[in-house]
Amino acid sequence: MKINRLGEFELIEQIRRQFAGIPSPGCEGIGDDCAVIPVTESEALVVTTDMLVEDIHFLRDRITPYELGCKSLAVNLSDVAAMGARPCGSFLSVALPVSTDTEWINAFLSGYHSLSETFSVPLLGGDTTASPDRLTISVTAIGRIALTDIKRRSAAQEDDKIFVTGTLGGSAQGLIDIKAGHGDTLLAKMHNNPKPYVNEGIWLGRQSSVHAMTDISDGLASDLLHILQASGCSAEVTIEKIPANSSIKLAVTGGEDYRLLCTVDSRRATEIAENYRREFGEPLYEIGAICKGEPAICWKENGVVATIDWKGFTHF
Amino acid sequence: MKINRLGEFELIEQIRRQFAGIPSPGCEGIGDDCAVIPVTESEALVVTTDMLVEDIHFLRDRITPYELGCKSLAVNLSDVAAMGARPCGSFLSVALPVSTDTEWINAFLSGYHSLSETFSVPLLGGDTTASPDRLTISVTAIGRIALTDIKRRSAAQEDDKIFVTGTLGGSAQGLIDIKAGHGDTLLAKMHNNPKPYVNEGIWLGRQSSVHAMTDISDGLASDLLHILQASGCSAEVTIEKIPANSSIKLAVTGGEDYRLLCTVDSRRATEIAENYRREFGEPLYEIGAICKGEPAICWKENGVVATIDWKGFTHF
Repeated sequence: MKINRLGEFELIEQIRRQFAGIPSPGCEGIGDDCAVIPVTESEALVVTTDMLVEDIHFLRDRITPYELGCKSLAVNLSDVAAMGARPCGSFLSVALPVSTDTEWINAFLSGYHSLSETFSVPLLGGDTTASPDRLTISVTAIGRIALTDIKRRSAAQEDDKIFVTGTLGGSAQGLIDIKAGHGDTLLAKMHNNPKPYVNEGIWLGRQSSVHAMTDISDGLASDLLHILQASGCSAEVTIEKIPANSSIKLAVTGGEDYRLLCTVDSRRATEIAENYRREFGEPLYEIGAICKGEPAICWKENGVVATIDWKGFTHF
Repeated sequence: MKINRLGEFELIEQIRRQFAGIPSPGCEGIGDDCAVIPVTESEALVVTTDMLVEDIHFLRDRITPYELGCKSLAVNLSDVAAMGARPCGSFLSVALPVSTDTEWINAFLSGYHSLSETFSVPLLGGDTTASPDRLTISVTAIGRIALTDIKRRSAAQEDDKIFVTGTLGGSAQGLIDIKAGHGDTLLAKMHNNPKPYVNEGIWLGRQSSVHAMTDISDGLASDLLHILQASGCSAEVTIEKIPANSSIKLAVTGGEDYRLLCTVDSRRATEIAENYRREFGEPLYEIGAICKGEPAICWKENGVVATIDWKGFTHF
């Protein structure tokens, strides 16, 4: 059987089962945005890693090296933020075609450096190797967090309100624009320059009434389902409340928006949303609620159940 | 300018300088086998990451998937061992061509799992993505260590004896064998199945008379020079004492032996070597001594200075 028949999530699940027998005392491994490694009685490090492959995750002539440098770090900082943690270091590995211009590399590093500086994240190591042709980038990011602040996918509770920190679908529409040769649209820029919600993630981490959290990298449908599967509950999402800046279909299935998706105790939801807006000058968008039931999303439009089967992005 | 004109170590040095301005309180970043992140008053985590690219680090038809799985983890565990630390987790990212057989992946994962089990290292996370053609593997390994046990490249002292934990050059000769179509030689097997000196590294870490340590991944000449540059001293190496299992040139310049290279207080060197042999049933090979002077290696053969300029492997 070929890997594309098996599927990405099935492969990850197979790996998780295969390695489950090796004890990892106190640690939380595969299954959330980051692994959790407790380091004291009250604190943990969280660790995440993401790989970006040329012609799969990016087209080298459709993104500037500066943007690519930023984005390589941003997608990892987004995973750290999704746990509620403060990033404290990153590791950058690059496989570079030997014909790569040093100018290109310098611009790439400037982008990576710029975002590192914005969020005070030191570059602590990495690897540089040659590549026969395509560029591959692998980044590992580490964060620190109080054990009591960690936000897991598995913590959603019945009646929680569901929030997202920003508009959805823009990145997927931007990718369509880029592929059509319109790399100068606002959404194309948004696709190439994702904003990691670092400070927002730390703030949400500190709110005890925020229960589950993840970032939206594979699409709302896919990432909300991860929360539901981990928490053992279902959700109702009101389609007209989704802050789409594209078609609704892209807002629901398009990947790479990198907004935070969280569930909040319904009794504190209004207060959290108001305090968040005061703190960051942006709304927390309420899009639905957690319900009792099997892990599944009930999409409603104008009060009527929509029956379309929407799925997010997978690699295989 | 192209990247191959700049050179790998120059690129790393440029990156180190560029990012030096971002504060990393208490952490030690680029410049040793692992980064060091203190987590309590007395303990640190160490972190390393290595990327393996098809047709650069391995030829897919010259190494079994099981061996490749082992080797991907082994080279990272070697870096953790080189700090004196105990590995406590790994992260595996793979970019897989969509045509990859699940049989191939299963064998690869079996190899990775086998070494993980041998050294009780849980797999805590990673990433799976598609690749247009070549396979790329990126592994991050994390270790734990008492602050007092950390072995840095910068700790070599005048008069220290220099030791290696195993034979040298075999891996490089094995690669020559493999490329010539003789994949079944003992050295070819050695090239594809490097042994990480995990328990030896932890043991050496606990000896206060062991000063500097690193692993030999780029070749003895190159890796010893890293210690000398970091420590601000020179070394004299006795060529006939080098435990070569190939030509002397390969033993000195060939990469990927993954032996540990350490410097030991001369007053305790005999005792350390004896205790090491008692503990592991293998010799610590003494090959020379640290001297006062500019970072450079003086190679001596039968008491006479050898003037050949030997360099290790670089990527660009």
